[in-house]
Amino acid sequence: MDQIFMEPIGRIHSPYAHPSEVPRQSQLATNINAYVEVVPSYQSGLKDLDAFSHAYLIFYFHQSQKISLQSVPPSDTKEHGIFAIRSPHRPNHIGLSLVSIQKITENRLYFTGLDMINDTPVLDIKPYIPQIDQLENASFGWLAPYHKRDDKKPD
Amino acid sequence: MDQIFMEPIGRIHSPYAHPSEVPRQSQLATNINAYVEVVPSYQSGLKDLDAFSHAYLIFYFHQSQKISLQSVPPSDTKEHGIFAIRSPHRPNHIGLSLVSIQKITENRLYFTGLDMINDTPVLDIKPYIPQIDQLENASFGWLAPYHKRDDKKPD
Repeated sequence: MDQIFMEPIGRIHSPYAHPSEVPRQSQLATNINAYVEVVPSYQSGLKDLDAFSHAYLIFYFHQSQKISLQSVPPSDTKEHGIFAIRSPHRPNHIGLSLVSIQKITENRLYFTGLDMINDTPVLDIKPYIPQIDQLENASFGWLAPYHKRDDKKPD
Repeated sequence: MDQIFMEPIGRIHSPYAHPSEVPRQSQLATNINAYVEVVPSYQSGLKDLDAFSHAYLIFYFHQSQKISLQSVPPSDTKEHGIFAIRSPHRPNHIGLSLVSIQKITENRLYFTGLDMINDTPVLDIKPYIPQIDQLENASFGWLAPYHKRDDKKPD
């Protein structure tokens, strides 16, 4: 099977050094200001991103050493497939987090909604586009009992 | 800068052989049934994904040979940074598409909402979790003039 090579486009600057320090309700922790420091040569790629309120960060779970094809997420008591949960211990170890854009200064994208540890390699940034990403009638899967927005974040 | 190695977790089966064949309003083309054929050894990772209505496919734009840090998307006349658009010609060539899950049969995930060409390497699958991914008040950025859901899809 062919290998694909990637390089970080930047790194996360976060007050959290270890996954255990990341709060479970990070999307509500709006007082934690973190930033992505984008590789200087890619700075021009950030143009106009700050016109959006939110973005997806695609990153690499660099501290995960294993793959578990099924596991019990903190928000449930049953085992689910890795592609039905957001655990770090997945093939390719890719993370996807939706963050709130605060400002962009030179090659730094400041955001809230942090659930990444310090030095996490960022692979890509995509604008959150409501006409694509905002589904009105999406169903909650095995998370149905936890479907209130202020419940803890599953993973 | 450190390199990261990835391998496809599966491949897209699609009637489109070339990017120019993919319709611009693919999210509305609900009659095109495509599937992800997941590597057989990862089949158990699909457990319970079909309880969700939608999923994000994270894939690799394997036919893109270049990186353009700024470009004019088809839906606009102005140049924007690559991290503010969804063009394939980006660092790491990662794609993110939201698809509607039809069914899962063994190691095949059938979906609608196809905007990928045949044989596209899939890197990850994540459930669309409304309490995380469904933002009510996200702003449209430079896409504001095109913000009706039935407008053409930007990229």
